[in-house]
Amino acid sequence: MTNTAAIPSSPLARKASQPLAQQLAQRFAERIRQRLLLPGARLPSVRECARHHGVSPYTVVAAYDQLLAAGLLEARKQRGFFVRDSQAAARARPPAAAAVVVPQPPPVDATALIRGMFQADAKRAPGLGTLPAEWLDLPMLQAAMRQVLKAGSGAEQLALHYGEPAGDARLRQALGLRLADLGIACPAEQIVTTVGATHALDLITRTLLQPGDAVLVDDPGWAIEFARLTHAGMRLLPVPRGANGPDLAVMEQLIEQHRPRMYVTVSVLHNPTGNSLSLANAHQILSLAERGDFQIVEDDTYAFLAPNHAPRLSALDGLRRTIYVSGFSKILTPAWRVGYLAASPAWIEKLTNLKLLSSLTTSPLLERAVAHCLEQGQLRRHAERVLTLLDAARQRSMKLAEAASCRFVAPPQGLFGWVDVGMDTERLAQAMMDEGWLTAPGMLFSASRQSSTLMRINFATAQDALFWRRLQSLRAAAA
Amino acid sequence: MTNTAAIPSSPLARKASQPLAQQLAQRFAERIRQRLLLPGARLPSVRECARHHGVSPYTVVAAYDQLLAAGLLEARKQRGFFVRDSQAAARARPPAAAAVVVPQPPPVDATALIRGMFQADAKRAPGLGTLPAEWLDLPMLQAAMRQVLKAGSGAEQLALHYGEPAGDARLRQALGLRLADLGIACPAEQIVTTVGATHALDLITRTLLQPGDAVLVDDPGWAIEFARLTHAGMRLLPVPRGANGPDLAVMEQLIEQHRPRMYVTVSVLHNPTGNSLSLANAHQILSLAERGDFQIVEDDTYAFLAPNHAPRLSALDGLRRTIYVSGFSKILTPAWRVGYLAASPAWIEKLTNLKLLSSLTTSPLLERAVAHCLEQGQLRRHAERVLTLLDAARQRSMKLAEAASCRFVAPPQGLFGWVDVGMDTERLAQAMMDEGWLTAPGMLFSASRQSSTLMRINFATAQDALFWRRLQSLRAAAA
Repeated sequence: MTNTAAIPSSPLARKASQPLAQQLAQRFAERIRQRLLLPGARLPSVRECARHHGVSPYTVVAAYDQLLAAGLLEARKQRGFFVRDSQAAARARPPAAAAVVVPQPPPVDATALIRGMFQADAKRAPGLGTLPAEWLDLPMLQAAMRQVLKAGSGAEQLALHYGEPAGDARLRQALGLRLADLGIACPAEQIVTTVGATHALDLITRTLLQPGDAVLVDDPGWAIEFARLTHAGMRLLPVPRGANGPDLAVMEQLIEQHRPRMYVTVSVLHNPTGNSLSLANAHQILSLAERGDFQIVEDDTYAFLAPNHAPRLSALDGLRRTIYVSGFSKILTPAWRVGYLAASPAWIEKLTNLKLLSSLTTSPLLERAVAHCLEQGQLRRHAERVLTLLDAARQRSMKLAEAASCRFVAPPQGLFGWVDVGMDTERLAQAMMDEGWLTAPGMLFSASRQSSTLMRINFATAQDALFWRRLQSLRAAAA
Repeated sequence: MTNTAAIPSSPLARKASQPLAQQLAQRFAERIRQRLLLPGARLPSVRECARHHGVSPYTVVAAYDQLLAAGLLEARKQRGFFVRDSQAAARARPPAAAAVVVPQPPPVDATALIRGMFQADAKRAPGLGTLPAEWLDLPMLQAAMRQVLKAGSGAEQLALHYGEPAGDARLRQALGLRLADLGIACPAEQIVTTVGATHALDLITRTLLQPGDAVLVDDPGWAIEFARLTHAGMRLLPVPRGANGPDLAVMEQLIEQHRPRMYVTVSVLHNPTGNSLSLANAHQILSLAERGDFQIVEDDTYAFLAPNHAPRLSALDGLRRTIYVSGFSKILTPAWRVGYLAASPAWIEKLTNLKLLSSLTTSPLLERAVAHCLEQGQLRRHAERVLTLLDAARQRSMKLAEAASCRFVAPPQGLFGWVDVGMDTERLAQAMMDEGWLTAPGMLFSASRQSSTLMRINFATAQDALFWRRLQSLRAAAA
C-alpha cells in the first residue's frame, strides 16, 4: 500500500503574479526535493486537493501536469499521481517560471508541445518555431501602430468599426502588389485577411473539404497542420518530401488509390527540411492536380525568408487550382496575428462568408499597421536585415552541429535545419527539457508520429555551444 | 430584342484609393443617369466586361452588385443584367462611397445583409446592430492602446510573442472579477479569449457538437447564429421567445422529440426583442437541461447594457451545464475583436486546443488594451454614460415610432426595439434601401426565414423623424 502524500497546507497567494497552479506545483516540488514526500507516495486526488486549497480542479490538474513535465511525478492509470523514484527525481528540475509542459512519450500530444512553445525562452530554445524576439524590429512595429492610432479622418473609421468582411482594403491592395513581386497576379478582391496563416488554413479546410476526405500532406511536415486536419476528420495521405519537393511517384499512387480532394504543402523553405520545390516538380504537381482534380493549398509562411523568384505553385497556376496562404508571424511579429489567403473568385465568396460566420471580421487596426509596414518598404528592409543575421547564424549553428557529429539530412537553408543527431530525439527532448532546453523532436514532424533520430533546429536559436556539448554527452550516455 | 449596353471604355485607375469595382459601378451609373444607357438595355456579360477592362470577373460581379443595390439594374434569371425602368431609376441613388449591398428578396442571404452592415452609415441605419461610433470613447481606446505600446519590460513581451494560448492572463484575471460582479464564480483558468463573441460561439459549436445534432434556438433570434449553426450541419429547433424567456412547454416537447445536444440563447437583452429571462424561467431551463442532458450556451453580448443583477443562467448553474460567452464589440469597439468564453474545466482544455489548431493565439496587444479599460474602471464609467444616452434615445425613438403608428411587440429595453410596422418589412427594407436607409426586417430574425410586419430598430440610430415619416408614407402607398 502506498502512503498518500500530505497536502501542503498554508494558503496560496491569490493575488500573486504567479499563477495558482504554479504556486501549488512548486510547493509539491519542494516537498519532494526535501524528501518530505518519498518516492512512491500517492498525491491527493484532484478533487481532494482542489477542495483543500479552494481552487478549481483545473488548477490542480495544471499543477500536476507541471510536476509530470518536470519528472517529479508519474501518472498510473486509474490510480492517480505518484512521486517518481529517487533516481528520476534527482535528475528532475523544479518547474521554472516559464515552465514548459513536455509531452510524455508515447503518445505526445502535439498541442501540448505547441502550447509550451508559446512560453519558450528563445535563449534556450533550439526548437523554436519563430525568429527570436530580439531579431524583430520593435520600434518599427510601435511606429506603425502609432500611425494607425494617430488622430485624423481615417483613425476614427479604423478604431470604431468592424472593418470590411474581406479585410482592410489598404492591406489587401498592398498584398496584391506583394504577390505580384512573387509572380502571382491577384487583385485585392481575391484576397481575404485572417488571424494568422493558421486561421486561413482552417477556413480553407472547412470550406473546401468534408469530414472523411483524403488530403495529401508532406511527410515530414508540421504537427499542428496534421492535428488540425485530423481534428476536422480528414484522412492524411503522407507523401515523402525530398530535396526537390514531394515524391511524385508516391503521390501518383496515392491519388489513384485514395482520390484526395486536396494537397496542403509548404512549397518554399519547407518546415522542417528547409527544402523548396524545383520548377519541374512544381509543374508536375500541377499536372497531377489537374488529372486527379484536386485543389492545392500553398502555405508560404516563410515567404519573406526566401527569394521572390523561388517558384510558387500559385504563380505557375495563376490561382486556378491553388489557394495561396501566408502571414507575418515569421517576419514582423506573431503578436499581431495577421495572415491572409489568395484564391480564385469562385472560392473567395465562400471563404469570406465562412470568415463572417466564424468571427465576423478581423481587426482592421492591426491590418492597417501591417499595410503601413508594407507600403513604406520598411518590411522589405527589415527582411533584408533578418536575412543577413540568419545567414551568419546558420553558418555558426551548422559548424556547432557538425562539430557535435550531427548530420544535416537536407542542405541547410532558411530558418530551420533538419538534423540527424544519432540518438532518439524524443528521449533527447525529455532529457534536454529537464535542463530547460526546448527542442523539436522528429516525431513532431512525422505524419505517423514515428520516433526518429531526427530533430528540427532553428538556426537563429541554436548558436549556443553549451547546447551542443550537452547533446554530445547525452548521446554518449545513451550509447 | 434588347440592345446590349456599350462598355465604358477609358481605363480604370488601378492605383486609385477607390476600389476598381466601385469605379466601374460609378461609370455605368453615370451612363444610366445621362440616359446613354436606356431602360431595358442589357449590360455586357461579366466575362466580356472583365476582359474589356482587364479586371477579374469578381470585380465586375461586385460592380453589378452595387448597381443592383442602388436600384439601377435588375437581374433576369439566365439572361443577364438589364437597366431598370426609368421610374425605378429616377428613384435610385448613385452607389455611394459606402455602398451597401442589399439582399434581393426573396430569398435574402443573411451574410449579404450582414456584409452590408459593416459599411452602414449610422446616421441612416435604424437597423444597425451596434452602438453608433460617436457614442464610443475614442480617446479612452487610444489611451489604452498607447499604454500597451509604451516602452517598458512588458511591452516587448506583448509586442513580439504569440501570447498565451488561453489568452492574455491580465485580461482573463480582470474578466474573472467582472464575472464575479455578475454572480458567476469563475477563475481565470476557466476563461478563454476569442476574436469577438462570434468566434467563441464557433469554437463551442465545433467542440461540443457533431453535424446532424439538434440545437434549440430562440425564435426570433439572430440570423448569423442561425446561419452559423446551419452551415456547421446542425438541425435548428426554434423555441418561441416570450416576455420571460423561451416557451417552456414547446421546449419540453422539442426535447422529447429531438433530444437536442445544446440550447444557444441570448438570455439578457435578447436580440431582437430586448427581453430578459425571468429568474423562474432560468431555473426551469436548467432543470430541463439537466433532465434532457444538454448543454446551454449563454450569449451575453449585451452584458454591459444590462444591470449586473439580471439573472444569468451561468450564475444559477455555476458553469456546470452552461458555457458563458461575451465580448466588447457592443460597448468598447467592434474594431478590437475581443471576446471570451467561460466554461467548466472539462471543456476549457478542449476549447483551448481547438483555438490553437484554428488560429494559434489571439492578439495579446488588443487583449491587454481591454484589460486596461476594465482594470481602471474606465469601461464601467463609459458604460454608465452610454446607458444615459441610450435611455434618452429610447424615449425619443419610442415616441417617433408610436407617432408613426408602429407598435412595440416587446417592452422597449436595452439597445433594440422589436416593432410591428404594419407592412411587410422585407418590402419596406428594399424601398428604404433605395433611399439609403439600412433597416433590419423581421425575416432576418426568423429561424424559418418567414417574412413579417416586424422589424428590429436600434434605439440609438432610430431618432431621425424623417425615417419614420418615410415609413408612414411607404405604408400608405402599400395599403
